[in-house]
Amino acid sequence: MPEPVVYLNGKFIPASKASIAIYDAGIVLGATVTDFTRTFHHKPFRLEDHVHRLYRSMKYCRFHVETTPEEMIELTLKLNRKNTALLKSHEELGIIHFVTAGIFQVYAGSAGSGEEMTPTVCIHSFPLPFYIWKGAYRKGVHLVTPSNRHVPPQCIDPKMKYRSRLHYWLADQETHLVDPKGVSLLLDLDGNVTETGGANFLMVKDGVIKSPTTRNILPGVSRQTVIELAGEMGIPFVEQDLQVHDVCNADEAFLATSPVCLMPATKINGMTIGSGKPGPIYKKLMKAWSKLVGLDIVAQIKASKPPKSKRK
Amino acid sequence: MPEPVVYLNGKFIPASKASIAIYDAGIVLGATVTDFTRTFHHKPFRLEDHVHRLYRSMKYCRFHVETTPEEMIELTLKLNRKNTALLKSHEELGIIHFVTAGIFQVYAGSAGSGEEMTPTVCIHSFPLPFYIWKGAYRKGVHLVTPSNRHVPPQCIDPKMKYRSRLHYWLADQETHLVDPKGVSLLLDLDGNVTETGGANFLMVKDGVIKSPTTRNILPGVSRQTVIELAGEMGIPFVEQDLQVHDVCNADEAFLATSPVCLMPATKINGMTIGSGKPGPIYKKLMKAWSKLVGLDIVAQIKASKPPKSKRK
Amino acid sequence: MPEPVVYLNGKFIPASKASIAIYDAGIVLGATVTDFTRTFHHKPFRLEDHVHRLYRSMKYCRFHVETTPEEMIELTLKLNRKNTALLKSHEELGIIHFVTAGIFQVYAGSAGSGEEMTPTVCIHSFPLPFYIWKGAYRKGVHLVTPSNRHVPPQCIDPKMKYRSRLHYWLADQETHLVDPKGVSLLLDLDGNVTETGGANFLMVKDGVIKSPTTRNILPGVSRQTVIELAGEMGIPFVEQDLQVHDVCNADEAFLATSPVCLMPATKINGMTIGSGKPGPIYKKLMKAWSKLVGLDIVAQIKASKPPKSKRK
Amino acid sequence: MPEPVVYLNGKFIPASKASIAIYDAGIVLGATVTDFTRTFHHKPFRLEDHVHRLYRSMKYCRFHVETTPEEMIELTLKLNRKNTALLKSHEELGIIHFVTAGIFQVYAGSAGSGEEMTPTVCIHSFPLPFYIWKGAYRKGVHLVTPSNRHVPPQCIDPKMKYRSRLHYWLADQETHLVDPKGVSLLLDLDGNVTETGGANFLMVKDGVIKSPTTRNILPGVSRQTVIELAGEMGIPFVEQDLQVHDVCNADEAFLATSPVCLMPATKINGMTIGSGKPGPIYKKLMKAWSKLVGLDIVAQIKASKPPKSKRK
Amino acid sequence: MPEPVVYLNGKFIPASKASIAIYDAGIVLGATVTDFTRTFHHKPFRLEDHVHRLYRSMKYCRFHVETTPEEMIELTLKLNRKNTALLKSHEELGIIHFVTAGIFQVYAGSAGSGEEMTPTVCIHSFPLPFYIWKGAYRKGVHLVTPSNRHVPPQCIDPKMKYRSRLHYWLADQETHLVDPKGVSLLLDLDGNVTETGGANFLMVKDGVIKSPTTRNILPGVSRQTVIELAGEMGIPFVEQDLQVHDVCNADEAFLATSPVCLMPATKINGMTIGSGKPGPIYKKLMKAWSKLVGLDIVAQIKASKPPKSKRK
Amino acid sequence: MPEPVVYLNGKFIPASKASIAIYDAGIVLGATVTDFTRTFHHKPFRLEDHVHRLYRSMKYCRFHVETTPEEMIELTLKLNRKNTALLKSHEELGIIHFVTAGIFQVYAGSAGSGEEMTPTVCIHSFPLPFYIWKGAYRKGVHLVTPSNRHVPPQCIDPKMKYRSRLHYWLADQETHLVDPKGVSLLLDLDGNVTETGGANFLMVKDGVIKSPTTRNILPGVSRQTVIELAGEMGIPFVEQDLQVHDVCNADEAFLATSPVCLMPATKINGMTIGSGKPGPIYKKLMKAWSKLVGLDIVAQIKASKPPKSKRK
Repeated sequence: MPEPVVYLNGKFIPASKASIAIYDAGIVLGATVTDFTRTFHHKPFRLEDHVHRLYRSMKYCRFHVETTPEEMIELTLKLNRKNTALLKSHEELGIIHFVTAGIFQVYAGSAGSGEEMTPTVCIHSFPLPFYIWKGAYRKGVHLVTPSNRHVPPQCIDPKMKYRSRLHYWLADQETHLVDPKGVSLLLDLDGNVTETGGANFLMVKDGVIKSPTTRNILPGVSRQTVIELAGEMGIPFVEQDLQVHDVCNADEAFLATSPVCLMPATKINGMTIGSGKPGPIYKKLMKAWSKLVGLDIVAQIKASKPPKSKRK
Repeated sequence: MPEPVVYLNGKFIPASKASIAIYDAGIVLGATVTDFTRTFHHKPFRLEDHVHRLYRSMKYCRFHVETTPEEMIELTLKLNRKNTALLKSHEELGIIHFVTAGIFQVYAGSAGSGEEMTPTVCIHSFPLPFYIWKGAYRKGVHLVTPSNRHVPPQCIDPKMKYRSRLHYWLADQETHLVDPKGVSLLLDLDGNVTETGGANFLMVKDGVIKSPTTRNILPGVSRQTVIELAGEMGIPFVEQDLQVHDVCNADEAFLATSPVCLMPATKINGMTIGSGKPGPIYKKLMKAWSKLVGLDIVAQIKASKPPKSKRK
Repeated sequence: MPEPVVYLNGKFIPASKASIAIYDAGIVLGATVTDFTRTFHHKPFRLEDHVHRLYRSMKYCRFHVETTPEEMIELTLKLNRKNTALLKSHEELGIIHFVTAGIFQVYAGSAGSGEEMTPTVCIHSFPLPFYIWKGAYRKGVHLVTPSNRHVPPQCIDPKMKYRSRLHYWLADQETHLVDPKGVSLLLDLDGNVTETGGANFLMVKDGVIKSPTTRNILPGVSRQTVIELAGEMGIPFVEQDLQVHDVCNADEAFLATSPVCLMPATKINGMTIGSGKPGPIYKKLMKAWSKLVGLDIVAQIKASKPPKSKRK
Repeated sequence: MPEPVVYLNGKFIPASKASIAIYDAGIVLGATVTDFTRTFHHKPFRLEDHVHRLYRSMKYCRFHVETTPEEMIELTLKLNRKNTALLKSHEELGIIHFVTAGIFQVYAGSAGSGEEMTPTVCIHSFPLPFYIWKGAYRKGVHLVTPSNRHVPPQCIDPKMKYRSRLHYWLADQETHLVDPKGVSLLLDLDGNVTETGGANFLMVKDGVIKSPTTRNILPGVSRQTVIELAGEMGIPFVEQDLQVHDVCNADEAFLATSPVCLMPATKINGMTIGSGKPGPIYKKLMKAWSKLVGLDIVAQIKASKPPKSKRK
Repeated sequence: MPEPVVYLNGKFIPASKASIAIYDAGIVLGATVTDFTRTFHHKPFRLEDHVHRLYRSMKYCRFHVETTPEEMIELTLKLNRKNTALLKSHEELGIIHFVTAGIFQVYAGSAGSGEEMTPTVCIHSFPLPFYIWKGAYRKGVHLVTPSNRHVPPQCIDPKMKYRSRLHYWLADQETHLVDPKGVSLLLDLDGNVTETGGANFLMVKDGVIKSPTTRNILPGVSRQTVIELAGEMGIPFVEQDLQVHDVCNADEAFLATSPVCLMPATKINGMTIGSGKPGPIYKKLMKAWSKLVGLDIVAQIKASKPPKSKRK
Repeated sequence: MPEPVVYLNGKFIPASKASIAIYDAGIVLGATVTDFTRTFHHKPFRLEDHVHRLYRSMKYCRFHVETTPEEMIELTLKLNRKNTALLKSHEELGIIHFVTAGIFQVYAGSAGSGEEMTPTVCIHSFPLPFYIWKGAYRKGVHLVTPSNRHVPPQCIDPKMKYRSRLHYWLADQETHLVDPKGVSLLLDLDGNVTETGGANFLMVKDGVIKSPTTRNILPGVSRQTVIELAGEMGIPFVEQDLQVHDVCNADEAFLATSPVCLMPATKINGMTIGSGKPGPIYKKLMKAWSKLVGLDIVAQIKASKPPKSKRK
């Protein structure tokens, strides 16, 4: 049976062969930057923005790769073509880029090249599992603020999309005590709302979309899409320090992230947000976004089904 | 040619096959705990202590593995026997344990099992590259305090040996601007000295060994060995908040870490520490340690040579 | 039917009449200091210590009362005698002192005296509801660290026993999402463990009793009793910054507080502490304490029954 | 002689009977939220805004009352009618709402109901003592920054109007050493200006009204009125972090709070602010506000006299 | 040979006699405020702004001088006239004001006047050494973030131009390890970019000029000039928290400071900023500024030569 | 009339000529380290300790002077001999060392040497004005905690005795509003007690001398003397974080500083400390110290008189 390809260090290889040496700094140190792009109608959405952010992240980490951004885009499109060919027509891809600092020579022992570290570059994809998100689209997710805090920018800057995220894992362990399907909304060291493990947090109050400041968050591409769509629709968008009190008293809240565009958030720490249902500005934004990409995003998700192997 | 084995998820496999799926949470999130043990005369040093710390780290992360600590010790000893057989007699092994949160199902796409995440468990080893450390043993390392800060315990607790360490990588980028061989000594958010990327920091002032408090550091096994040896020799050992001013005005400083036991640190931010040479308490400790393990640790390192492939 | 008395501003009155004007600063500002003493065999335990702490709290708040500490002790003993007379022989009293800043004149309107504020002084008691704690004594409590933080000493010093504790209430709202019987263990702004809403936290590791430092906690009288009993038994007691990682990897943990002396804590954030059962040092301490006060504290609690009105 | 009524837990009762059990969480924990509305010409000003804020505060505290906001408004208007009937025509009412977490059962002993806690709900009023503020209206108040800090939002969110305010009391003890009539302006943990014990702080620089950000303060209704009036008059209003250096070099400063609308602040820590007199923007705002409510606010205050009992 | 004059405590004296008693609080405590003005075509630029800022600084420090701002301006113009007479026509002056707290009596011993401290007031000038900055104008400076932090406003407010700047000196010691010509860009306690030892930091991203907030920096007169010139040219200017990640990914960066107006910054911590060359908005601003002052600022600097004594 | 000498940059000069160029970094940046030694019976007390601390401070600042510590001691003794010759027999000297970073070339203009900066080294002295401290010795000083905070070690390390102390000046401005003779006791950023502008703070509780930790304070030589004397007398000495609550409830408090050895502190923020009078441990320490130096320190101070010029 045909399988998707993975781009790894200059070559396209079958997904089942895609693995990383245990000496790679991506494993040894979590020294990895990444990005995530999804397709609409099989076309990557704002791929340039994602690739450029990846290069900003690499710059900050001093990862020096020979591939140019333009070449990276080309490689991505090629991978997308190959892997799309294996999809059913209603399916879409999530495309992941990641770059690690390369092989950590000392641990490699005799397997080490003894040379300077060269970044490990990988592009891979997977069919977006829309069926997983169906329920959350309809009812909204439950946000929970765990007691551990987001890593602050003076340690690792969250404006990079990076993968040293054990704090997210730890946060989820606490969150799942409250609600096994809860989503961790991390606070910063001062108690301000930041972001979830996979999405930007946004809320609406009195007709204004409010976001935490970029000090503590990834300046997400989906969030940027919201800024632009809101701008076109005349909905104000502001950045400010927000706390849980703001969230529980918001009119609406939602998460912005590439795989799902926007996902409503209807509870926080057990308290209902707004009406407890996806709100009008959320719906307006999703409608505008659907128009932008030429397909009904919500309908696509609602129509999705789990693969047979996962139905019982 | 025979190659070392790696223990991975229940099997011993050749090192050259030891790799991790790109969907593993160890790569995707840096959600990995680890430990590091070295041998003396081919016998792992304080292996129980290292394995028990690994289990404490796993407990905090809620990684549930079926292997018991006793079994883990057995597996380690087995791996040590196999891989020691490939060593020259004057060589020693560094043995690494790491456990990740397991396969991140969503990213795996069709390759995902659809089941609960099961931790990935790995044990591997490499011959300790003593020759790399020869110079530093003789002259001491140059500590540099970069401008980014150690991740604080309210985000990820450093008492675990974990691998979301992009901040170490970033620190090194700054440190290497000062000195390409410099070692990053990270400060905490309040400007206190913490630890380096691979070792505990210790200093001597007026006959007392001083350590940062365990709030911000790994309670290292080598550091524990120092505590015990110092206790036997009647040298006081205290924990307190230390700043760079303390370090530059210390009588001696050294790093404690499994691969090298103790390494002198003779400069900080360009300032000489003490006499600028390995100090008397350092030497006493190394002597006691050598006696404890029945070999002259410093001599062993001094006698080491780079592998032919690395001599030019 | 006879009812207990309450001492309020110079008079003993029936409990059913004991209320505070809605203009009192205790209600308007939470400007109240307090203390809590229990009896053993109907004799208040370390009453002098509690009363002196109350006066230290008052000094810090600049509450100037005419009653001297000696008189306060006398009044307390008198109240204890009166209210003990209503008890069954196996019952014990919890005795509360509280002092507020007095009537907040502006809000009182015409009801205001127009004079300087005079503190409101109250002593009251209630039979200790041992039956409530039976289960926790046997199985231990589940500690949960909520996402909001303890008020730091640069705002209100926790070395006073004070009553502006809305943060405890808020903490409990989060904790009860995890476990309706969970006990909030608040972290300080730096993520260190502090205290629960009603007790000091103590843990045991490697034979040493460890406590958070007094920077962030009430220096409790029960905790002081532990210090003294441990001293007599040769068990070391140290104060240091502790984090959740310490707690989940402790050998034992318990709460020290006047009503129950010591209460085992056997889980934190869903993780088992030690064996998951009351530990040997806990038991030793309780035994020594029982000897000190001449009654079997644990047996007393185990023998307790809910009042008929609360049995169903 | 007739006396005002107080609404308490479902009933209107005479003010002299309005008291709270000593077991109420409002006393035991300071677990109380509140709001404050004043009348102009005997009509409550922006009552809806105050009641809705009260409900936001209750939501955050998880106080569940059966009374709806609409019913609360009705009850308030009823109380206002009753108590206004006792006023002289030039008097106005201050109306207080407060809700506590309810009876703390354990402390209540046999007096406890043994049932779930039900919030205690109270509405009461008092004639605004304008005569107290006459001097301050004319000369302005002296702001003093004490050394203790405002409780930060990660402990208790100041966007709620709550009553665990012992830090205000402590602040005043320091402030009154500087000036017995001084008003405490609390700094946050980072040294930013926040608010006073009873009012929002606002200042004017170069024609712009500046306010601390809502992270650290109550979003006051009087402050909101300033925002709206300023908007109508074309005076810019911005939120930013402000420090004492900004205040002492401001052109004007004033406090916004329901009882007095706006009160000039003309000194800070002994330094004169602006001209040392109420400034032109202050005056404009007061004029606009007077127009809005149909009475000359300043004149009303200036005409006030102390009750006979307080004249000497 | 004629020498420049210095204004010191009421008198104009020759520069070679201008010194400060070793008992002056300017030396003993660093208790000094200052300002810096430069000339264009021998005319002081925005002298009023500089003098008024000096008086704001003095107000905050409670330095009470009898000289009014108007008199200070007069004295400055007089000094400028006298010292300009000694210049070559293409030279310009840097004019420094500084005011210390005055003689620290105790240290003065018998030399002390025994009277209240009276501020020491000084105005002096020097020919701007343009030749020093030629290279940096062309290639841009290298910014380095040292590990020590800027003094926060809750200790000493940076909105004052003050001289207790040992932290700048310490920062430079670290910076010069990286690059002997590097310029220290200090971070605040939270890791935000603040300012350099002598200039405001500004950057450009997507056509917007971005500045750190005034919480942590001097609100510089050159920065203010940028705000005004940018306003005229329709270039947006915003204040927000910025981190190193922002800087290394900026399109342009520059320093604003009186002696040089604007200086390009083209590297940070070894990473190239933008194109690595002075950028288009920088050039536009310099052109507009040159127009404003009626001379080509860049040309003036480029034409400068070191004094003979400094050419080798 | 003969006047004292000052050692300045290699020469002994008359005190009246001792001044510093206005271009010196000591004035321009406050880039100065210092130390202070007093005599007993005309012999400098622990001069070596003071000089060695000065050299530690210089090391941290990278001030490189050619004079060795031994030579510095010699120079100091010489200056002491010369200046002691001018004293009355009951007088003692305070001897000040200070070293600045040297001439700041740019500001010096043509007066600049154009060479590398060379530190300015100065030693001077003054007769200790005991009469100033007579009252405080008898009654104790009033400590006040101002709202601004001590500069933290991550900015400038207080373990150096340095002179960028504008924050002390600012603190005093607030303190003197409370009490014109009040002494500022600065808090650190976390609200812990640190030190005063000129002395270490120490307190006694339950027979134990308590000190803030050295993180935030100068490790004073007088404080060290207390440690040693207390050790000899069997009085325990501990370092821990202390807050105002500890101080107001202490049994005794005192300041340790070279000019006066120990000075009782009997009030804090208006609250009496202990009995409000110099306490028994203070007296014991002073007695032991007097014995150590062979003169009755308190008697010496009590016998002192103001110089005629200062009597009215």
